[in-house]
Amino acid sequence: MPPAAITLLTDFGTADGYVAELKGVLVSLAPGASIVDLSHDIPAQDIAMARLTVARYWKRFPVGTVHVVVVDPGVGTARAAIAIASDGRLLVGPDNGVLSPALFSLDARVVQLPVDPRVSSTFHGRDVFAPVAARLALGEPLEAVGEPHREAVRLRTPQPRRDAYGLLHGVVLTFDRFGNVITNLITQERVGMVKVAGRAARLVRTYGEAAPGEMVALVGSSGLVEIAVREGNAAQTLGISRGDAVVLTAAN
Amino acid sequence: MPPAAITLLTDFGTADGYVAELKGVLVSLAPGASIVDLSHDIPAQDIAMARLTVARYWKRFPVGTVHVVVVDPGVGTARAAIAIASDGRLLVGPDNGVLSPALFSLDARVVQLPVDPRVSSTFHGRDVFAPVAARLALGEPLEAVGEPHREAVRLRTPQPRRDAYGLLHGVVLTFDRFGNVITNLITQERVGMVKVAGRAARLVRTYGEAAPGEMVALVGSSGLVEIAVREGNAAQTLGISRGDAVVLTAAN
Amino acid sequence: MPPAAITLLTDFGTADGYVAELKGVLVSLAPGASIVDLSHDIPAQDIAMARLTVARYWKRFPVGTVHVVVVDPGVGTARAAIAIASDGRLLVGPDNGVLSPALFSLDARVVQLPVDPRVSSTFHGRDVFAPVAARLALGEPLEAVGEPHREAVRLRTPQPRRDAYGLLHGVVLTFDRFGNVITNLITQERVGMVKVAGRAARLVRTYGEAAPGEMVALVGSSGLVEIAVREGNAAQTLGISRGDAVVLTAAN
Repeated sequence: MPPAAITLLTDFGTADGYVAELKGVLVSLAPGASIVDLSHDIPAQDIAMARLTVARYWKRFPVGTVHVVVVDPGVGTARAAIAIASDGRLLVGPDNGVLSPALFSLDARVVQLPVDPRVSSTFHGRDVFAPVAARLALGEPLEAVGEPHREAVRLRTPQPRRDAYGLLHGVVLTFDRFGNVITNLITQERVGMVKVAGRAARLVRTYGEAAPGEMVALVGSSGLVEIAVREGNAAQTLGISRGDAVVLTAAN
Repeated sequence: MPPAAITLLTDFGTADGYVAELKGVLVSLAPGASIVDLSHDIPAQDIAMARLTVARYWKRFPVGTVHVVVVDPGVGTARAAIAIASDGRLLVGPDNGVLSPALFSLDARVVQLPVDPRVSSTFHGRDVFAPVAARLALGEPLEAVGEPHREAVRLRTPQPRRDAYGLLHGVVLTFDRFGNVITNLITQERVGMVKVAGRAARLVRTYGEAAPGEMVALVGSSGLVEIAVREGNAAQTLGISRGDAVVLTAAN
Repeated sequence: MPPAAITLLTDFGTADGYVAELKGVLVSLAPGASIVDLSHDIPAQDIAMARLTVARYWKRFPVGTVHVVVVDPGVGTARAAIAIASDGRLLVGPDNGVLSPALFSLDARVVQLPVDPRVSSTFHGRDVFAPVAARLALGEPLEAVGEPHREAVRLRTPQPRRDAYGLLHGVVLTFDRFGNVITNLITQERVGMVKVAGRAARLVRTYGEAAPGEMVALVGSSGLVEIAVREGNAAQTLGISRGDAVVLTAAN
C-alpha cells in the first residue's frame, strides 16, 4: 500500500526556504507519499485563521490522510507538540488551538510528541512535525509516536445568540480574497436582512439574485452566512474587522 | 492505468481554505491522481488573464490531462458549467470564456454539466468542477458527465492590423511579474522598432543585445512581441494599461 | 523504478503561465515523476536569495532528486546553462551562482547544456532546464546531457571575522517572512550579546526565554545567528538592509 497523502498548512510564505526544508524531510522519510500544499499563506502567527481553515478541509480528505499544520508562534516555549487521530484522519502540529476542529469527534485521541532537545528550537515543522507525519503516513499507529495527552487546547467558533425579539446576533469571523465577509451566523431562512456596520444587506440564495454592485447576504460554501458585494469587495466597502457585530432579522 | 494528472488554475489565492477543500474532493474521488498546481493567483475574477494563461499551457500537458479552471465571477448566475474534450486534453470550468483556447480545435466537443440545486451556489469549484474532473481523470468519457452544449462562449485574442504603410498595429495584452509588456504583435522581422506610449523600443533577438536599463522589444516565449527593460521593469517605466496601442515598424 | 522527484525553485511568481508551461514539459517528458514546488516567489532576479535558499534544502532531499533552479536575469546573454551532480543529487539551472552550494562537494561534476538556437531566448526554464531535468529524473547520466564545464560561477556566503578583542564581526544575510534577521554569525556560545543598528540583543536559546516584544538573538534553524522580536518583527523594528554590520560579544 502506498503511503497516505500528507497535506501542509503553514504560515511560512514561500519566499524563502522553510517550506523547501520541510518537504525535503517528508520526501526523504516517506518516499512516494503525495504531498499536497493547502496553504503557506496563512497570515503570520494567525492561530484563529488557521483553525477556521482546518475546520473547512480536514474531513474532506480521505480516511488515512495526514494533515500537518504549522502556525506556531509559541515554538520554543512550553507549548506541547501533538498528534491527533480523529474520524480516521491524522493531524500533527502545535497544541495551540489550530488543530481544535479535530478534537470534538467522539473518537479523537491525542498524543504529545517527544521533542529531542538537540533539534532546532525555532523550526519544529521540519524537525518534529514532519518526521512524525512521515511515520504516520507510512502506517505507524498514533500511540507509537507519543504519549497520551489529555489537556489539549480546544478553541471554538463563537456561537450566535438569539435575543427575545428573535434577532440572531453574531460576529464577523474572517474575510476571503474576494472581500466576502464570513460571519458565524447560521440560518435556514430564505427571506431576511443582515445588519452590519450600520448597513443592511438582504438575504439572497445566489449571487445571481444580486444586481452588480449590490451588497447582499447569503449562505456560503461552509454553511455560514456571508456578506458579499456582487462584482465588488464587501470587506473594503464596510471597513469592518474580525469580531464586529452582525445581526440577522428574518422577514416573517 | 493510474488516473490522469489534474491541473488547477484558480483565482482563489491561498490565504484561506478554498483550494484545500477543492483538493480534498479530488484526492477523495480520484485517489492516486497527480494534482498539479498551475496558479491560484490569477487576479480575482480576471477572465481575460485566465484565458491568456490557459492558452499558454493547455496543450503543453500530455494527452489525457484534465485541466480545471475556476475563475468564475458568475457563479450562482445562469452561466453554464461545462467540460471540453479537445486535442486529447480535457478541460472543466465555467462557460465564461476562460476555456476558449480549447474551443477552436477541429475536434473540440463540449458538454454542459448538471448542477444539483442542493450544492453550494458560491463554490462550484468544489461541488461541480472537482467531482467531474475526478471522473474524467479516472477515464469516464466526456459524454458521461453532461449533455452536448453548442453555444459555448468563445473569446479571442484581438489580431493586429497592418495598415497601408506596412505598420503593424496591436495592443497590450498583459504584463508579467518581471514587468515585461506582452502585446498581440507577431513578427518574423529581425530589425525594426516598436512604438508604445510615445517611446520607441528597438527589436532585438535576445536580452543579451540590450544594454542594462535599455528598453527593447523581442519575440517572447509565447511567440508574441514583448517590451522589456533589461534589469528593469518596462510596465512601470511606461505606465501603460491593457488595451493600449502598440505599433511595429519593420526597418527595411 | 519510478522517476526521481523533481523540485522547482523559481522567481516566476504564480500570477501568470510560466510555471504552468514548465510543469507541462516535465509532466510530458517524465510522466509519473513527483514535481515538488519549493518556491516560485524568490524576489525577481535575486540571485543572492536563491543561492541562500538552495543552500538550505538541496541536501535535505534524497539521493537522486533533481533540483531545478530558475532565477535567471541573464537568460539570452552569454551565461552558460549547466547541470551538476553532487553528493548524489542533481541540479539544473543557469551558471550565475544560484547553484553554488552544490559546487563545493568533493565529488561535484558540472556539465554545460547545449542550447538549441531555435528555442526561446527568454524562457530557458521551459525549453532548456525542464527537458534536461526530465532526462536526469528518468535516470540518464549527467555526462549524457552536456559537456564538462570547468569554470562554473562559485558564490560564497561571506565568513564572519574575529577581531583582536574576540568580537565576531558579521553581516545581515537576509530576512524571513516573520521579520527575523538572518546573519552570517555562527556561535557555540550560550551567553552573549549581538549588536545591530545601534541596539543590543541578548543571546537566548529559545523564543521561550524572551518576553513578548523583546528583541533577542538565537541560533536559528540553519545554524546561523538570527535576531528576532518575540511576537514582533525585528527587520521592521531595526530598519536594516542586507549587508549591514552585526557584532557578537560573548559574555565570558
